[in-house]
Amino acid sequence: MSISAFDHPFLSGLLGDEEISAYFSAEADIRAMLAFEAALAKAEARHGVIPQEAAERIAAVCGKFQPDIASLKSATATDGVVIPDLVKQLRKAVGGEAGQHVHFGATSQDVIDTSLMIRLKAVSFLFTGRLFAVTSGLEKLDKQFGKNQLMGRTRMQAAIPMTVSDRLRAWRTPLDKYRDRLTQESFPLQFGGAVGTLEKLGSNAAAVRASLAQELDLTDAPQWQSQRGGIAEFAGLLSLMSGSLGKIGQDIALLAQTGEEIELAGGGGSSAMPHKQNPVTAETLVTLARFNAVQLSGIHQSLVHEQERSGAAWTLEWLLLPQMVMATAASLRSALELIGNVRRLGINS
Amino acid sequence: MSISAFDHPFLSGLLGDEEISAYFSAEADIRAMLAFEAALAKAEARHGVIPQEAAERIAAVCGKFQPDIASLKSATATDGVVIPDLVKQLRKAVGGEAGQHVHFGATSQDVIDTSLMIRLKAVSFLFTGRLFAVTSGLEKLDKQFGKNQLMGRTRMQAAIPMTVSDRLRAWRTPLDKYRDRLTQESFPLQFGGAVGTLEKLGSNAAAVRASLAQELDLTDAPQWQSQRGGIAEFAGLLSLMSGSLGKIGQDIALLAQTGEEIELAGGGGSSAMPHKQNPVTAETLVTLARFNAVQLSGIHQSLVHEQERSGAAWTLEWLLLPQMVMATAASLRSALELIGNVRRLGINS
Amino acid sequence: MSISAFDHPFLSGLLGDEEISAYFSAEADIRAMLAFEAALAKAEARHGVIPQEAAERIAAVCGKFQPDIASLKSATATDGVVIPDLVKQLRKAVGGEAGQHVHFGATSQDVIDTSLMIRLKAVSFLFTGRLFAVTSGLEKLDKQFGKNQLMGRTRMQAAIPMTVSDRLRAWRTPLDKYRDRLTQESFPLQFGGAVGTLEKLGSNAAAVRASLAQELDLTDAPQWQSQRGGIAEFAGLLSLMSGSLGKIGQDIALLAQTGEEIELAGGGGSSAMPHKQNPVTAETLVTLARFNAVQLSGIHQSLVHEQERSGAAWTLEWLLLPQMVMATAASLRSALELIGNVRRLGINS
Amino acid sequence: MSISAFDHPFLSGLLGDEEISAYFSAEADIRAMLAFEAALAKAEARHGVIPQEAAERIAAVCGKFQPDIASLKSATATDGVVIPDLVKQLRKAVGGEAGQHVHFGATSQDVIDTSLMIRLKAVSFLFTGRLFAVTSGLEKLDKQFGKNQLMGRTRMQAAIPMTVSDRLRAWRTPLDKYRDRLTQESFPLQFGGAVGTLEKLGSNAAAVRASLAQELDLTDAPQWQSQRGGIAEFAGLLSLMSGSLGKIGQDIALLAQTGEEIELAGGGGSSAMPHKQNPVTAETLVTLARFNAVQLSGIHQSLVHEQERSGAAWTLEWLLLPQMVMATAASLRSALELIGNVRRLGINS
Repeated sequence: MSISAFDHPFLSGLLGDEEISAYFSAEADIRAMLAFEAALAKAEARHGVIPQEAAERIAAVCGKFQPDIASLKSATATDGVVIPDLVKQLRKAVGGEAGQHVHFGATSQDVIDTSLMIRLKAVSFLFTGRLFAVTSGLEKLDKQFGKNQLMGRTRMQAAIPMTVSDRLRAWRTPLDKYRDRLTQESFPLQFGGAVGTLEKLGSNAAAVRASLAQELDLTDAPQWQSQRGGIAEFAGLLSLMSGSLGKIGQDIALLAQTGEEIELAGGGGSSAMPHKQNPVTAETLVTLARFNAVQLSGIHQSLVHEQERSGAAWTLEWLLLPQMVMATAASLRSALELIGNVRRLGINS
Repeated sequence: MSISAFDHPFLSGLLGDEEISAYFSAEADIRAMLAFEAALAKAEARHGVIPQEAAERIAAVCGKFQPDIASLKSATATDGVVIPDLVKQLRKAVGGEAGQHVHFGATSQDVIDTSLMIRLKAVSFLFTGRLFAVTSGLEKLDKQFGKNQLMGRTRMQAAIPMTVSDRLRAWRTPLDKYRDRLTQESFPLQFGGAVGTLEKLGSNAAAVRASLAQELDLTDAPQWQSQRGGIAEFAGLLSLMSGSLGKIGQDIALLAQTGEEIELAGGGGSSAMPHKQNPVTAETLVTLARFNAVQLSGIHQSLVHEQERSGAAWTLEWLLLPQMVMATAASLRSALELIGNVRRLGINS
Repeated sequence: MSISAFDHPFLSGLLGDEEISAYFSAEADIRAMLAFEAALAKAEARHGVIPQEAAERIAAVCGKFQPDIASLKSATATDGVVIPDLVKQLRKAVGGEAGQHVHFGATSQDVIDTSLMIRLKAVSFLFTGRLFAVTSGLEKLDKQFGKNQLMGRTRMQAAIPMTVSDRLRAWRTPLDKYRDRLTQESFPLQFGGAVGTLEKLGSNAAAVRASLAQELDLTDAPQWQSQRGGIAEFAGLLSLMSGSLGKIGQDIALLAQTGEEIELAGGGGSSAMPHKQNPVTAETLVTLARFNAVQLSGIHQSLVHEQERSGAAWTLEWLLLPQMVMATAASLRSALELIGNVRRLGINS
Repeated sequence: MSISAFDHPFLSGLLGDEEISAYFSAEADIRAMLAFEAALAKAEARHGVIPQEAAERIAAVCGKFQPDIASLKSATATDGVVIPDLVKQLRKAVGGEAGQHVHFGATSQDVIDTSLMIRLKAVSFLFTGRLFAVTSGLEKLDKQFGKNQLMGRTRMQAAIPMTVSDRLRAWRTPLDKYRDRLTQESFPLQFGGAVGTLEKLGSNAAAVRASLAQELDLTDAPQWQSQRGGIAEFAGLLSLMSGSLGKIGQDIALLAQTGEEIELAGGGGSSAMPHKQNPVTAETLVTLARFNAVQLSGIHQSLVHEQERSGAAWTLEWLLLPQMVMATAASLRSALELIGNVRRLGINS
C-alpha cells in the first residue's frame, strides 16, 4: 500500500489527492463494474434479450454485492483480468436462472474499460472545476499585482522589464484552453463482446448498446477495444495540464531563488537548516510535469495494441493511466495552494 | 549527413520520405524565415511603423537572398539560434537605411517558431491527403475481402471468427478521427518581440500582428513563446497517427507469421535465406510507432519552459519534432505501400 | 491504496509481489530511517561527537519508536520531506539532553537516501536468488527439451530449424550477466549534511562516516546527494532484467499463438470464451518490460539534479524507482511461474 | 540532410560534432561492413572453409569497393536491410568463383551489428579522451578558484556557504566513474548466421568466429543478435554521461542567472537585445541530457526483441543509437568549451 507515493501513508501528504484517489480505489472500480453489469441487464431486458425479472434481480444484487476480494485477487493472477471471477461470484449471488443472464454477450474489456470511462468522466468534471479555481487564483493575482514590474527573462538572463500581467497571461492562457478541451471531452461506452462484434446480440446489438450507454450516462460509440487513441488523447491532455502547471512551478522556483520579485508564504522547513523557506510546492509542480511526460510515452506505446485485444498493451495502460490522473490531480491541487501562497509578485514601481 | 535514418543515404530508402523531408531542409527553413522578415516589413509599413520603400526593398531582397551558411553555422554555435547572424547578413544585403528596418520589433523566436508553423501547415495538408489515401486503400480492401472470414484473436489466441470487415473497421476508424483533427488544426503566427510584449510596436502591436498573420496565411494569435502546449498537442497527434498505423503493422506481421489469412506481395529478401518473404513494411510501422511514442515524452518535457524563453526546452524541441514529423510521414507512406501489397485478406468461406 | 497495480487489492494478484513490496512499505522505510538515526548516534559517540549515553538512549528509542503517521503526512505536505517532523517526534521521544543529539550533523537526504540503499541492498540479494531460480528453470527445460527442434524465426517469419537449446541459450545468457552485475553492485551510505560538506562534524567527518557505513553494513563513500548516476545505473539494471524477461515473454506468447511448438499449463480464462487458454503470464512479462523502459527515462531526467539538492529531481525518483523495483520483482516472479508452466517446448523429432 | 540537428547545415554549429559524426556517415558504415566481409573471408580461409585465393581476392576488392548507393537505397526499401544488395554488388565486383564465397555463412545482422561495434569502439576511445579533458578542465578550475566561497543551495534556496571545490567535486566524481566504465567496455563481434547457429560452418564455427574477432580487433563472444542488453547498457552509459554534464550545465545556468558567483566568456548574442550574454552552452548541456534520457527509453523498449531477429526492435535501435552517440559527443564538446569559458567561479573571500 505504499508503492505509489500518490497513496503512500506519508508521502501522499505532498503528492496525494484524496478527492481524486477515491475514484481509483478497488471499491470504486468494483462499484462501477457492477453498475455496468446492472445497466447491461436492464438494457438487454428492454430489448427482450433477457427476461425483465432477471434484469431486476441482477440490478438489485449489483446494487449491494460485496465480492470476495481475496478470490478476485487470486483469479486475476491466473486470468489476467478480474472479470471472469467477478462474474462468477456475481452469478452465484444472483442465483437461479437470473444468474445465467449476468454479463450476457459482454467480455472483460467491456466492463473494465467502461468502468474506467465512468470514473474518468467524474474526475474530468472535478478537474474542470480545479482548472477554473486555478485561473481564478491567477486572475486575483493579476488584480492585486498585475501592474507591478517584473523583469522579463529569456535564456535564464534578465532581458527587458515587463509587467506581472504579462507573465500571468502566459501562465493562464493554456489553462483556459485545457478547460475548454476537458469540457468537450467525450467518454464513450466500451461494448463489443468477445472480439468486438457483439455476435451474441444479433440484430439487437446496436439498440442494446445505445440503451446501455444511456443507462450509464456515457457516449454511445462503436467498440474501441483495440483502438486506444481516445485513452492516449486523454492522457495527453493530462500531461498538457501538468506540463503547463509545471512551467508555473519552475517560474516560481526561479523567482524564489532570486527572491526580490516574489514573497511566498508556506514554504517548507529543513531538518538541517531551520531558517530556510523552501518553495516545495513549486518544485513539486515540476516533478509532476516531468512524471506525466514520462508516463505518456508508455500510453502511446500501448497504441500498438495487436489484434482484437492485447493483454500486454492493455495491462500497460492499467499501470500508467491511474497514476497520470493522480499526478494531474496533485498538480492542480498544488498549483491552487501555491498561487494562494503568493503574498507579492513583481516590484511595485 | 547520415545521423538520422530519415535522410540517410541508404536507410532513407526504408525510413525516409522525400516529399516531407524537403520541408525540413535548411533551405526550406531559411526561405520561410525570410518570408517572415519580408511579411513583417510589409505589415509594419502598412501601419506606418517603417517606411513603405524600406519594406519594399526588404521584401525584394528576402525573395532572393542566399545567406552565407558557414557564417550561420558558426554564429549558431555562439548564439544558440541562427537569427542574429541571419538578420545581420540580411541587413547588409538590404543595405542603407532600409537595412536598419529589417526585423524591427521581432526576436529570434518569432522567426523560428513562425517558420516552423508555415512548414507544419503545409505538411499537415499533405498528411491529410495521405490519411485519406490510406483509408481509401482500406475501403478498397474491404470491398474486395470484407466478407472473408478472419479469426478474431485476443491475448494472442484464436477467439471466435469474425469478418475481415470487422478488423478493417478497427484499423480505419481512428484514422478518420485523426484526419478530422488534422483539418481542424490551427497554425498560429508567433510574434512577441524580446519578451512577448511587442514593446517596440506600442499601440500598433495588435494591428501589425494581425497583418503579419494575414500575409503569412497563419492564424493570428497572441504570442505563445513560452506556452508550448500547441506544439505538444500537434506532436501528440503525430504519435497517434503513427501509433494507430503501428497497430495495423503489428496485426499484419502477426497475420504473416501464421500465413494462412494473408497474402502479401513485395516482402523483403534476406542475405542468408533467399527463400524468405519478410513483412518488412509491417515491421517498420511498428518501429515508427514506438519511435514517436518515445519522442513524445521529450516534447512534453519541454512544456516546463521557464520564464519568457527557455533555451534548454526550446532547443530540445528542435531535436525531436522534425523527426516525429518524418516518422509520421514514413509511417503514412509505408502504410499506403503495405495496404497496396495485400493480395488477400482472410479466408473466402 | 489502489493507485498502483503493484499493491492493488486485486490487480496485485497479477502484478504484485508481496515479498518485495514489504521493503517499500512506509513501515519498512521508517524502520530503516530510524536505523540510520540510531547508527548515526552510535558512530558519533564512538568519535566523541556526542555523549555515549545520549547515543545509547537514542538507539534504544529508535529500536521501538512508532511515529505519529498523520503528523508525518501533514508535515511532508509542507516540508516536501518527512524528516524534519520525524526528527522532531524522535527528539521528543528521546527527551532530555539526549534528544538534542538526535540527527546531529545530518540532513533529510542523508536519512532518506540511506534508507533506500539499505532496502535496495536487501532487495538485490533477493533478486539475485530469483535470477538464479529462473536460469535454473531454463536449464531444466534445456535438459528436458533442449534437443527438440524449434523453427528459428527472423522478422516474424520461419527461417531455418534450430534446437530448443539454441533458443534457451539466448534467453539465459543475459540473465547470467545481470546476476553477475547485481552481485557486484555496491550500496553506498549517503551522508553529507546540509550541503554535502559535513560541516558540523569538522575533522571527525570522515571517521564518523566510515563508522556509520560500517554500522549499517553499507559501502562507505563520499556524499552523492546531487550525483544520481548510481541510482540511474541501478534502475538501468532493473530495466535490463525486465527487458530480457520481456523478450522471453514475447517469444512464448508468439509460440503460443502458433501453438505447435509449445504446451503451456496454467493459462488464463476468459469471461466470454471459457475454452481459451490465454498466455497471460507471457504477456505480463512484455507489459513489465515496457513499463520499466518507460520509467527509466524519468530516472535519467533526474540526473539533471541542480545545485546541492533538487527537490524537483529527487522527488521524481521517489515516484519512479519503487515501481521499477516492483515491476522487476513481478517480472522475475512471473518468469519463474511461466517457465514452470512449460509442459513441452519444440518438436521431438 | 537536415532532419537531425546533429548534422544540420547550421544547427550543427551548436549541436553537432564533426569528429564523431564521421563515424556515422554512410561511408564509414560501408567501410566497416566491407572490413567485416574481408575479415570473414580471411578467417574462413584460415580454417579451410573457403579457398585462400578467394579470400585474398575478396579482401582486395573490399579494400577499394565503392558500392552503388542508389541501388543500396532502393534495395533497403524492400529488404529492410542494406546487406542483401551490398553483398550482391560485392559478389559481382569480386566476380568469378571467389564471388560465390563472399559473406559465406553470415547474415545481415552479423555485418550491421559488427560494423556498429567497430565504430562504437573507436568512438568510445575518443569519449574517454574527452572525459579526461573535461575533468582536467575541472581540476584547473579547482586550482584557480577552489578556495573561493560558493553559496551551497538546496531546493533552489541559499543554504549555507561552502567552497567552489565542494561543488567541483560533485561535478567531477561521476565523470571519473564513467571514464572507468568506458575503458572497461567490451565491444563484441556479432556472428551467428541466419538464426544464430552458424549452421553453415559446422565444426569450424567457433574457430572462424575467434579468428574473425581477432581480425577485427573485437571481443570474441557468442552471437547476441536477439540479446540487446549490451546495446542498452552502452546507451545507458551515454545517457549517464550527458546527464551528469547536464547537471553541470544547469548549475552554471543558475549561477549565471544570479550572476555574482560566476563570470563567463563567450555567451551568446540576441537578435532583440544586443546587451545580453546568454549562457547558451550551459543550456545546451541541459537539452542534450534530456534528449538522451528520452531516447534511452526507446533503446530499452528494443530489449523486447522477439525470436531470432526482430525487424521492428532492431530498426528502432538504428533510429535512436546514433543520435544518442551524437548527443553525448556534443555534450562532451560543449562541456569542455563551457568550462574553458569560466573566467571566475565563486567569491574570493
